[in-house]
Amino acid sequence: MAVSRVEFVAARVALAAFLVCAGIMIGYFSTSTSRQMTLRDVAGDTCKGDQDDNREYINFKKLIKEADGSIADRLTREINNREIKKHLKLLLSEAPPVGGTTAELERANFIRDKWETYGIDEVNIVPYDVLLSYPGVVKKNENILQILEEDGTVVHEATLNEPILGQRKDILQPWLAYTPSGEVEGELVYANRGSLEDFKLLTDVQGINVTGKIVIARYGDIYRGDKIKHAQVFGGKGVILFSDPGDVTKEGAGVYPDSEYLPEYGIQRGTTQNGYGDPLTPGYPAIDITQRISIADAENSTRLPRIPAQPIGYADAKKFFESIDPSSQEAPETWRGKINTTYRLGPKMVNNRIVRLVSKNTRETRTTHNVIGIIRGDIEPDRYVIVGAHHDAWVSGAFDNTQGTALLLELARVFGKLLFCGWRPRRSIILASWGAEEYGLIGANEFVEEFSKNLAERAVAYINTDVSVIGRKFFFTLSSPLLNSVIYRATEFVKSPDAEYNTLREFWSSREKHVLNNSNDEPVIFKLGARSDHAPFYNIIGVPSMNSGRFGNDTSSYPLYHSAYETFRAVKMFIDPTFEYQQAIARLVGEVVRLLAEELVLPMDVRYYAKDITTTFAQIKKRFGTKLDSENITLSKFEEAVESFANATELFNIMAENVDRQDPIAVRMLNDKMMLLERAFIDPLGLPGRPLYRHIVAAPSRSNACNSVGFPGVVDAIADTEDLAVDDKVNGWRLVRKEIAKAIFALKSAGSTLLGHVKLGR
Amino acid sequence: MAVSRVEFVAARVALAAFLVCAGIMIGYFSTSTSRQMTLRDVAGDTCKGDQDDNREYINFKKLIKEADGSIADRLTREINNREIKKHLKLLLSEAPPVGGTTAELERANFIRDKWETYGIDEVNIVPYDVLLSYPGVVKKNENILQILEEDGTVVHEATLNEPILGQRKDILQPWLAYTPSGEVEGELVYANRGSLEDFKLLTDVQGINVTGKIVIARYGDIYRGDKIKHAQVFGGKGVILFSDPGDVTKEGAGVYPDSEYLPEYGIQRGTTQNGYGDPLTPGYPAIDITQRISIADAENSTRLPRIPAQPIGYADAKKFFESIDPSSQEAPETWRGKINTTYRLGPKMVNNRIVRLVSKNTRETRTTHNVIGIIRGDIEPDRYVIVGAHHDAWVSGAFDNTQGTALLLELARVFGKLLFCGWRPRRSIILASWGAEEYGLIGANEFVEEFSKNLAERAVAYINTDVSVIGRKFFFTLSSPLLNSVIYRATEFVKSPDAEYNTLREFWSSREKHVLNNSNDEPVIFKLGARSDHAPFYNIIGVPSMNSGRFGNDTSSYPLYHSAYETFRAVKMFIDPTFEYQQAIARLVGEVVRLLAEELVLPMDVRYYAKDITTTFAQIKKRFGTKLDSENITLSKFEEAVESFANATELFNIMAENVDRQDPIAVRMLNDKMMLLERAFIDPLGLPGRPLYRHIVAAPSRSNACNSVGFPGVVDAIADTEDLAVDDKVNGWRLVRKEIAKAIFALKSAGSTLLGHVKLGR
Repeated sequence: MAVSRVEFVAARVALAAFLVCAGIMIGYFSTSTSRQMTLRDVAGDTCKGDQDDNREYINFKKLIKEADGSIADRLTREINNREIKKHLKLLLSEAPPVGGTTAELERANFIRDKWETYGIDEVNIVPYDVLLSYPGVVKKNENILQILEEDGTVVHEATLNEPILGQRKDILQPWLAYTPSGEVEGELVYANRGSLEDFKLLTDVQGINVTGKIVIARYGDIYRGDKIKHAQVFGGKGVILFSDPGDVTKEGAGVYPDSEYLPEYGIQRGTTQNGYGDPLTPGYPAIDITQRISIADAENSTRLPRIPAQPIGYADAKKFFESIDPSSQEAPETWRGKINTTYRLGPKMVNNRIVRLVSKNTRETRTTHNVIGIIRGDIEPDRYVIVGAHHDAWVSGAFDNTQGTALLLELARVFGKLLFCGWRPRRSIILASWGAEEYGLIGANEFVEEFSKNLAERAVAYINTDVSVIGRKFFFTLSSPLLNSVIYRATEFVKSPDAEYNTLREFWSSREKHVLNNSNDEPVIFKLGARSDHAPFYNIIGVPSMNSGRFGNDTSSYPLYHSAYETFRAVKMFIDPTFEYQQAIARLVGEVVRLLAEELVLPMDVRYYAKDITTTFAQIKKRFGTKLDSENITLSKFEEAVESFANATELFNIMAENVDRQDPIAVRMLNDKMMLLERAFIDPLGLPGRPLYRHIVAAPSRSNACNSVGFPGVVDAIADTEDLAVDDKVNGWRLVRKEIAKAIFALKSAGSTLLGHVKLGR
Repeated sequence: MAVSRVEFVAARVALAAFLVCAGIMIGYFSTSTSRQMTLRDVAGDTCKGDQDDNREYINFKKLIKEADGSIADRLTREINNREIKKHLKLLLSEAPPVGGTTAELERANFIRDKWETYGIDEVNIVPYDVLLSYPGVVKKNENILQILEEDGTVVHEATLNEPILGQRKDILQPWLAYTPSGEVEGELVYANRGSLEDFKLLTDVQGINVTGKIVIARYGDIYRGDKIKHAQVFGGKGVILFSDPGDVTKEGAGVYPDSEYLPEYGIQRGTTQNGYGDPLTPGYPAIDITQRISIADAENSTRLPRIPAQPIGYADAKKFFESIDPSSQEAPETWRGKINTTYRLGPKMVNNRIVRLVSKNTRETRTTHNVIGIIRGDIEPDRYVIVGAHHDAWVSGAFDNTQGTALLLELARVFGKLLFCGWRPRRSIILASWGAEEYGLIGANEFVEEFSKNLAERAVAYINTDVSVIGRKFFFTLSSPLLNSVIYRATEFVKSPDAEYNTLREFWSSREKHVLNNSNDEPVIFKLGARSDHAPFYNIIGVPSMNSGRFGNDTSSYPLYHSAYETFRAVKMFIDPTFEYQQAIARLVGEVVRLLAEELVLPMDVRYYAKDITTTFAQIKKRFGTKLDSENITLSKFEEAVESFANATELFNIMAENVDRQDPIAVRMLNDKMMLLERAFIDPLGLPGRPLYRHIVAAPSRSNACNSVGFPGVVDAIADTEDLAVDDKVNGWRLVRKEIAKAIFALKSAGSTLLGHVKLGR
């Protein structure tokens, strides 16, 4: 299959823009169904029963047992596309598992029951009481979005209900979660993608005052919550978001149900909170003991939006553009999409029409449920390899993320079978099915907050699976550099579903070589963003994380994203007819989990972190070096620290290669250093003004939660200072110096983590 | 030796009030003398050389080797009072090792050389560039404190130089570190001990306006830095602190050099910063890369005092009281000390005299040096048992803390001898000789900040030795409850220097039974304050810590504290003539270190933590329960969490007793849980408004850095709320609820740390 570089780049940008940038109903639930822990459960941790003279040596041999490679074959063989298909079909035929609804609880119960049946050692449903948001209590959308004549006559009323095109009827019609209820009227202003730059251009260059206007913006490029935040900051009183046909259709390809493209009344739902986790319990788990902040406080900190907003389809968007007066300025060329109309900026309206938005959205505390399954490690039960996927969805969520749930069910089935046959991994494997991800990674975040101490001390890695097969053209991985080596190994092992290639790795490399002239033997692994469940693991406590999948189509995102048309039909007819692509990703995830849980020496190559940091530093130096020089800020100590860390990784690698594999304690010490390396990059006080982002080396961009920035504290401080008035620059450059020092300090800590106490004297 | 309960209680109060409430000159130093680390050093961590067929089993046996009890006997036998005496005498004959001076660097070099000679594996001097403070550059105090007639005639000038009574002449004459230079004149107001309550009584009840006055206050009860802070808050423009004969003399007993009591011109020096560590680099180590805050910022946050202050002796204090006009109110009875004068409150002065204080103190960045010695652990080198003492002193510091330095030298000598004879501890032992403790635990704090990641992940315990033998009547231990069991065990093993008793434990128990009617089999262990080097370990990163010693005399503190008369003569003639008391403490410290570094299963009994917390909770409930009830704040969830934690410790204890001691990994997992338990009590965001205090279960009182409070977040929030205006109480009670939730959360984390992943599902 020939694919162009342009396609690849476009698809890759799109991926960065929403990948894992993915996020209702009603129900009352009883609380935790977890079981009483018995003394026997606990004692089992260390009591090994009676001693006898002979077993000492046998036991010892077990402690240094190398991973059994034949398990990889068994695991792979057992993971089956028909099973995945069966589960996906079943799950997608059920009521949409919107976070906090009865349907979500039923989904959680289903998963729990299945995992128990499969023989997972311990399965619990863990509830959290969190702030969620719904469009109303009835099936039909109660929200109203109209264009009115001056005398109040309704010229047009937007269709806020997606037509039923074969899918289930019991869906929640489109709304933007957490946007408040309210009624606003005003003229319309078009703000392109709603980025900070867009608003600046609109106001500064085009001279349009957004204050008191209703902002219309198209989806794409940046996180929708940021679009609304920007509109709010610039004085907008309401927001309309639409999917542009330029992003969600392909000429001549038709639309769903005839293709994977979005029909004209198809609408993208989604969350709008800034940050992640329960908005009312920042820093602590949303359990009974925790004190909530008020919604007003959450709005004041811009965690929650204060202005109403509504998403629409492109058929309706056309009507809105047509109500902008022809005397109004036309939008700049790059702002024009593919609606057959003239994109104008507003605000002057035809005949002084006005737009009226009535939102009846609620914000209410509901219960969402995680399902946590534990496969007890045989030798090191206190080391956790966590694999997770969210089970909630805005509608049926075939791609986002019922695929992931089907994948986890299949992994649980196969691991259960292996357990039944006598296998048990060296380390514990934790299966996690997260609730209310769509609202802002809530289940995963509350879990990390509740068990932050344990996880920070014990978690080896977190493997995420979200929107894993939304196309076929490319293979992607987003990851902490610590997992690069295991990803390369596992992709070499797993067969490619693409006929021309033997392994995933071969497909991946070949595709990259072909389209990117990437002559490097190693294909590119992207940095992690923060819009899926890995974010709390990676950004708050520094657990190495990854997410892999297949993507690539002819639009700039996957077109049915968060619409009612993420159906079984969409998966089967247009993306993965034989379910072999999902099977391949499931095998990859399974193999990554197996390697991390089973290998005597953790299969991490710390040198990849040095490589990543060296590249990031070079970019910073190139971009800002001259400017910093002119401010007498030197990057030389930073550079030294980067080099010194790189040397530490080389030395550590020699240690790892020479470790005495007959000495279980020596091996554990070595593994602990690798496991804890990423923690050295965590500053518990967080980045300036961003307590949720504690990772010094990587964080999402502040103006777009979907993109990742290297050394964000440093980069943001420089960017901010350049924008400051002359008098304030002194403090700005002071902060830059401080952030550089923090980056150096994190690198020193990381080196010291690897090289251990010999470095205590520096 | 018969001792009364009153004596014990008085001594104990005094101990709490300054114990370890203990902390100038010139010099330029080169930086670190640490060696280049070689690949061999690093590789040694895990490379065990060539394998042969036979060693596998032998090595394995080593991994599960139980501690060799005979080492305890050897260690104890080798620790020798004559060696301690020899070192103490030598050290006390040298120039006073004031933090940041050439003499301190010489002291550090001496220690480094000795440790190296003794055979400690690796010894490094680790420098930090920190803000220190000195009275001036000449031997004679340049500060001036006078009483002036209205016409400016000097009526009296205070003697700010302590007479040379046989000790070295090259001392820095008394000043209060970090108080600024400046010249102030004004009337005098007497504020008793300078506590918040004292100032409130003075202003509210006695109606005296402190604004613009010079405050005179006596030492004792609370930390001197808090006295000055309070004076500043109440508008005072300068402070005079004096030692009251009621606190530092005994009738008929004479004074130094004839006894251990303070002569009339003897003066207590000390630091006045609020908080600990380098005042200009909070949260980060004071190394080249770190950005400093400004002194103005440090003053604005009340970290450093803004008004000048001077300490004086009681002969001079008399003159000041005599200059207060007889028409001025007499001080309340409890405010009167033992100076032969009338204690009056002021501010009216005889003949409108005024007090003039000219301070030439400097605040300057200097280099202080830690000495870090490492004895590499044989089996688990990545587990650290740290034993430390500060080597700096205000003058010679016989008690504070040259004793501790002599003790560490002796421990190093004996450990070195054992190493030479083939012994090597299971875990690493780190010997730490801290710089600039007197200025506010600076060396230890910067060390903890620099290596916070490593230490939080690897430190088993920190054993502090500061002012360890300042009396003989009582034995004391301040400790984290996690170390109670090891303290009880070690005191049972170490011989008592008191003829009538066999062991320290016997003496300790008997003395308590005798004077306290403490029928409990286990004598009382105090909570840790925060005025010695254990504070950063305990309060910032949650490393279990302790400090033991002997105390008890006939005054409310040790009288020569921070004066020029802390000499070899004082130790030998009045406190510990045969050095057997110091020997006993050295043996105790050595045995505690040995047990923690050597025992296969860490000798910690987690149930003591539950006991401590249960008691603390009961006190809170008793003190505040009714009040909280009336505000509809229930303590029931808190109580449940305390009980649940207590149950977890019981279950854990069963696990520990049943652990398979033939399985080195099972043992390590168990030990990790114990080691990390205290970390569960650390909230990285700290207590409200107190980022240096992160331990949820214990912190010093806010108004007195020397006392410890249980669940300080909760207790302080309640106390604050009671003081609030009615309108603000709503927010106050909100904070109380939040702090209760944080306490419960910490207890849950602690339970989960002990019981491991079976608790992940709750």
